[in-house]
Amino acid sequence: MNNSTIQQNFERLRSNKAFELFVVAVIIGSALLVGAKTYELTPSSRSLIIWLDMLITVIFVAEITIRFIGEPDKRAFFKNGWNVFDTLVVTISLIPIDDSDLVLVARLVRVFRVLRMISIIPELRMLLASLLKALPQLGYVILLMFIIFYIYAAIGATLFESINPTLWGDIAISMLTLFRVMTFEDWTDVMYETMAVYPMSWVFYLSFIFFTAFAFLNMVIGIVVNVMHAETEKMQQGQEPETPEPSLQEVQEQLLRLQRLLEARERSGS
Amino acid sequence: MNNSTIQQNFERLRSNKAFELFVVAVIIGSALLVGAKTYELTPSSRSLIIWLDMLITVIFVAEITIRFIGEPDKRAFFKNGWNVFDTLVVTISLIPIDDSDLVLVARLVRVFRVLRMISIIPELRMLLASLLKALPQLGYVILLMFIIFYIYAAIGATLFESINPTLWGDIAISMLTLFRVMTFEDWTDVMYETMAVYPMSWVFYLSFIFFTAFAFLNMVIGIVVNVMHAETEKMQQGQEPETPEPSLQEVQEQLLRLQRLLEARERSGS
Amino acid sequence: MNNSTIQQNFERLRSNKAFELFVVAVIIGSALLVGAKTYELTPSSRSLIIWLDMLITVIFVAEITIRFIGEPDKRAFFKNGWNVFDTLVVTISLIPIDDSDLVLVARLVRVFRVLRMISIIPELRMLLASLLKALPQLGYVILLMFIIFYIYAAIGATLFESINPTLWGDIAISMLTLFRVMTFEDWTDVMYETMAVYPMSWVFYLSFIFFTAFAFLNMVIGIVVNVMHAETEKMQQGQEPETPEPSLQEVQEQLLRLQRLLEARERSGS
Amino acid sequence: MNNSTIQQNFERLRSNKAFELFVVAVIIGSALLVGAKTYELTPSSRSLIIWLDMLITVIFVAEITIRFIGEPDKRAFFKNGWNVFDTLVVTISLIPIDDSDLVLVARLVRVFRVLRMISIIPELRMLLASLLKALPQLGYVILLMFIIFYIYAAIGATLFESINPTLWGDIAISMLTLFRVMTFEDWTDVMYETMAVYPMSWVFYLSFIFFTAFAFLNMVIGIVVNVMHAETEKMQQGQEPETPEPSLQEVQEQLLRLQRLLEARERSGS
Repeated sequence: MNNSTIQQNFERLRSNKAFELFVVAVIIGSALLVGAKTYELTPSSRSLIIWLDMLITVIFVAEITIRFIGEPDKRAFFKNGWNVFDTLVVTISLIPIDDSDLVLVARLVRVFRVLRMISIIPELRMLLASLLKALPQLGYVILLMFIIFYIYAAIGATLFESINPTLWGDIAISMLTLFRVMTFEDWTDVMYETMAVYPMSWVFYLSFIFFTAFAFLNMVIGIVVNVMHAETEKMQQGQEPETPEPSLQEVQEQLLRLQRLLEARERSGS
Repeated sequence: MNNSTIQQNFERLRSNKAFELFVVAVIIGSALLVGAKTYELTPSSRSLIIWLDMLITVIFVAEITIRFIGEPDKRAFFKNGWNVFDTLVVTISLIPIDDSDLVLVARLVRVFRVLRMISIIPELRMLLASLLKALPQLGYVILLMFIIFYIYAAIGATLFESINPTLWGDIAISMLTLFRVMTFEDWTDVMYETMAVYPMSWVFYLSFIFFTAFAFLNMVIGIVVNVMHAETEKMQQGQEPETPEPSLQEVQEQLLRLQRLLEARERSGS
Repeated sequence: MNNSTIQQNFERLRSNKAFELFVVAVIIGSALLVGAKTYELTPSSRSLIIWLDMLITVIFVAEITIRFIGEPDKRAFFKNGWNVFDTLVVTISLIPIDDSDLVLVARLVRVFRVLRMISIIPELRMLLASLLKALPQLGYVILLMFIIFYIYAAIGATLFESINPTLWGDIAISMLTLFRVMTFEDWTDVMYETMAVYPMSWVFYLSFIFFTAFAFLNMVIGIVVNVMHAETEKMQQGQEPETPEPSLQEVQEQLLRLQRLLEARERSGS
Repeated sequence: MNNSTIQQNFERLRSNKAFELFVVAVIIGSALLVGAKTYELTPSSRSLIIWLDMLITVIFVAEITIRFIGEPDKRAFFKNGWNVFDTLVVTISLIPIDDSDLVLVARLVRVFRVLRMISIIPELRMLLASLLKALPQLGYVILLMFIIFYIYAAIGATLFESINPTLWGDIAISMLTLFRVMTFEDWTDVMYETMAVYPMSWVFYLSFIFFTAFAFLNMVIGIVVNVMHAETEKMQQGQEPETPEPSLQEVQEQLLRLQRLLEARERSGS
């Protein structure tokens, strides 16, 4: 059996429905393991989990290997971002860790294996792609919002730092505080504190809320309009007949030819 | 009077407008009783309520019996989910309860009799059906949101468990805490607590808020677009004329036939 | 000068632009007075305010009288709800009050004079009318939402009354608590309290939030679709040409007549 | 080299891409400086910042001078609001400040230099213009909302002032408290406090929340409909072909001419 036959066999295997379902089941199992580890465990169940974790790692390694060997064009394999992500997550979880400091890191890497759910289900991959596609269209609104945040944070850090350094210590902390104000989370506590020193500081908060709410609203409407626009275009394309309808102009030209024919005959007849 | 006549009489009765209004009135009465029971009551009013409760149960049993006997096809009766629900709720409230532990259960069953309001008013039944119909279309967005929640909960339970076990004890509690963060309910308290240990943990909260807000927004837009789409299609169907308009192509073909007729004559004439 | 001439003079006066602007200015003045009264006042400014208040009352009485006399059809005057509202508010503020208990009531009546702003500006009156017109279309969604609230409040009052009677004392207080939960206002405090007794009670809160959020979303979408529908219909009516376009069918019939003409000639010619 | 040549050279310079990018880079640098100043600084980095600040001011002065000289019509320069804003911000930051009281003001003026980001990037300028254009269409809804706020604030200040003067002291503070209630920020604390005195005061808060939520919803829908309307009109204009399609009526008239031609021949032929 030569290399090419192995490749074809593995290609058939990886596009097999049962294989796909088995991998999804293993990913769900790995997600459940991740969840189970967050509970208090008896020593026996802890060793079971370690054993299951190793099993899942082995299955993932086998699966990725099958996918890689099954790929006709080896270079195309690593051009797909999801394949790179899968390989990375599986490879890192292969590294044996004894150092107790890195145990936490090892556990976090195992958490990211849950993301393989997205890489394996095409519908989720498409959904994520369409979500990300909407982002760049909003680039300038996000930039505008960042400028608003930056200016207000600079003003806040300048004026209110002496009042409460925990909230307004520097520009980064101030931006976090402003994000808190934007989510309306105990924002009046923040405001009442500064109003005790600057009685007019409610202008700062209210103007900030109005600006960000307005920009946010615009962002939402932007997304809605984009989605609707795409929807309408899709519908119009669906309505378009396969053979294009002749235009009225073409009909008129045809009529003109008819008329000339009749007139020519008239002249020849007379 | 044979069985069939009884069935026809009861069928007439159950589709009677006055009968329907009477049942709605009894359901409203049962809802008021449920409400009244939550207030402190004098012994006399308490016994009145018990008496009224029994009366309502009797009426409900009679009503369901009439509906069942009035149904021409007995099997079809239990194929309707609402009929099963009605029968179940009424039957359970028939069981006599003396045990003080089950009194609470009995009271809760009586609360669900208020839901009969939805089963009896067709408009509410339709509204609920249309609400539920919108759900499966959102399946993948909900799955994506669940994955986001699960991964963040796993990270949270891994990193923050030692900081506050009440909020991050295991993956289930962590998901509840994350839902709280998503509703912006005192989320900064949760954040400031973990920022004392991990100063960069604001990244965890902000990225989570952005991801869920974005997914939620997408879900809302998805519903809006679906509703609009259905609306537009309904409108287009309304506009469609009964006899379809001839296409311009057909007109053109007719003109061509005319031209050939003229040309044929031309040749025969010459 | 007879009655009819007075009526016509007053009708001219009340539709005078300057008169309208003067009344709007007086209403704004009365609104400012209402606001000024909420501040601590010196005795001299207090007496000024009392004097201004009397002046505004006199002007309002004069204005309403002019409007009434200027109305050609006296009965139509009181058929307009806004006229009734204006007359009522002005009349009540005429009643002299010495009793200190009623001083508060008198001040509140003066607050409602600010609402005359809506009755005098046609655009605001129209806006309010269009807002109210949207409500009945939402009737069933509001009913459904009320049923959800009622059932959850009944369950809450049954199960949680012993835990915190201030929040779950009876069905009315429970509905208020649930409204608070719906606005996400410290809802986790409410939840954590009951979770200490019933660890599964988070199901109660989360399911409630999902149901109401979903029903609310549907209500919003309902309004949006209604507004869009009205908008689209308005646009379509605007696009409709005055002389209707001949249909393609009519063109085809004309072509058929032409063909028959040619064929008839053919036969007669041969 | 005469004046006109200088002007043309500078005009070329200011529309140079590299010049634009350089100015954007300087503005970003000035924004970073503003941010850096909010952190605790060592004396050496403080003097570096002062030096950089002076450098940026000099560059800005040079840039504005180039723009002004490069402008063919000197009057048009100050008709553009953004030019006026740029000149003002740069001029004020030129004033040397020794007085320690004004240091704060000087720092705030430097913050506003970040806003030059909007004035220099055309897309942001357009975005802001389109945001502001949406506002006047909402004029009456905002007025209605203000009236609702004013009336509720007047009632609140009248009834609740004795309960909590910090929240309901005068009409201005009451409006701030109501804005807080509208954002659902600890609104139940405010309500429970007044419900202890007036048990029915929940009506005040709930009706206020319903009115403002409804008006706000209407505002949002208003914006959405306006945006959609503009979008649809843009699309319809885009679909319109350059040479207008002949109408069916014109085709019909042409057919009629043909028919008359044939009929005329018929008569002449017979």
